[in-house]
Amino acid sequence: MTNAATGLAHGRRRETNPHRPQTAELTRELEMSVGYVLRRAQLAVFADFSARQSEGAVSRPGQFALLAVIGRQPGVTQTQLCAALGIKRANLVVAIDQFERLGLVRREQCDIDRRANRLHLTPAGTQALSRATDGQRKHEARIATLLGANGRRVLIELLNKLRTLSEVAA
Amino acid sequence: MTNAATGLAHGRRRETNPHRPQTAELTRELEMSVGYVLRRAQLAVFADFSARQSEGAVSRPGQFALLAVIGRQPGVTQTQLCAALGIKRANLVVAIDQFERLGLVRREQCDIDRRANRLHLTPAGTQALSRATDGQRKHEARIATLLGANGRRVLIELLNKLRTLSEVAA
Repeated sequence: MTNAATGLAHGRRRETNPHRPQTAELTRELEMSVGYVLRRAQLAVFADFSARQSEGAVSRPGQFALLAVIGRQPGVTQTQLCAALGIKRANLVVAIDQFERLGLVRREQCDIDRRANRLHLTPAGTQALSRATDGQRKHEARIATLLGANGRRVLIELLNKLRTLSEVAA
Repeated sequence: MTNAATGLAHGRRRETNPHRPQTAELTRELEMSVGYVLRRAQLAVFADFSARQSEGAVSRPGQFALLAVIGRQPGVTQTQLCAALGIKRANLVVAIDQFERLGLVRREQCDIDRRANRLHLTPAGTQALSRATDGQRKHEARIATLLGANGRRVLIELLNKLRTLSEVAA
């Protein structure tokens, strides 16, 4: 049954109601900025990464990156991880603490300097990384399908340029 | 004075020491994934945004986006903001609470449903947005300088494609 005045089914509000600004209208200017669009893209990518992971210890890209580097370089220190991944020590320690509690990572104590702890995956950690890698590959394959090989290559180039932003003359 | 054995100045450790894996080596595989490179680029962009802001209430891109949308659409509701910006209600409420405490935003109470609060910038909020916009424009200009007009356009296209990632057939 439709509303005689609006021609719309009962309960539907016409989208052009001036008291209900369109979502797109609200962000029209923001959509012209790289910073905003980059953030929205990252939200979508983050969500897809998580959606491709099976139940387990790895649900976020950052967790995957940590396990992957430790797996690739057994004995890597927390300091090296921070430098390699661009993460703050405080955040790294929290993440490694969690992995240690879950039995995925073990710290090889260095008595002289606690900062020099070398990190290793346990057998359970190696398994978790293997499962997480399967999901991460599915996720990256979906991105490749969406962008095409050339689009993907160009995107990586442009993103890598952006990483040098601090070097641009003020 | 150099070390006779290594030819390096005293105190310098040769970068090829096998016990000190190169930072780049640690992340070689991650650097081939869009997800990782996207995140590293976003860290750089976030840092530059903050660096171009003068002392004040806006230090993060998300705070800028909120003030910008409220400024553009006085009376916008919290629900509309969440939908427009893709942020969780809980996080939005925290941010608006902080803006309210700082005297930049006021809530127009709706007695029937607290969720329908309409938001407005105060005069101080309008000033804060104006200053933040100056900084945001400098930031975006640096990005444009770095990427060039074409690079910028292509990057935005590719990032917008990424935003549709959830629609890719599993």
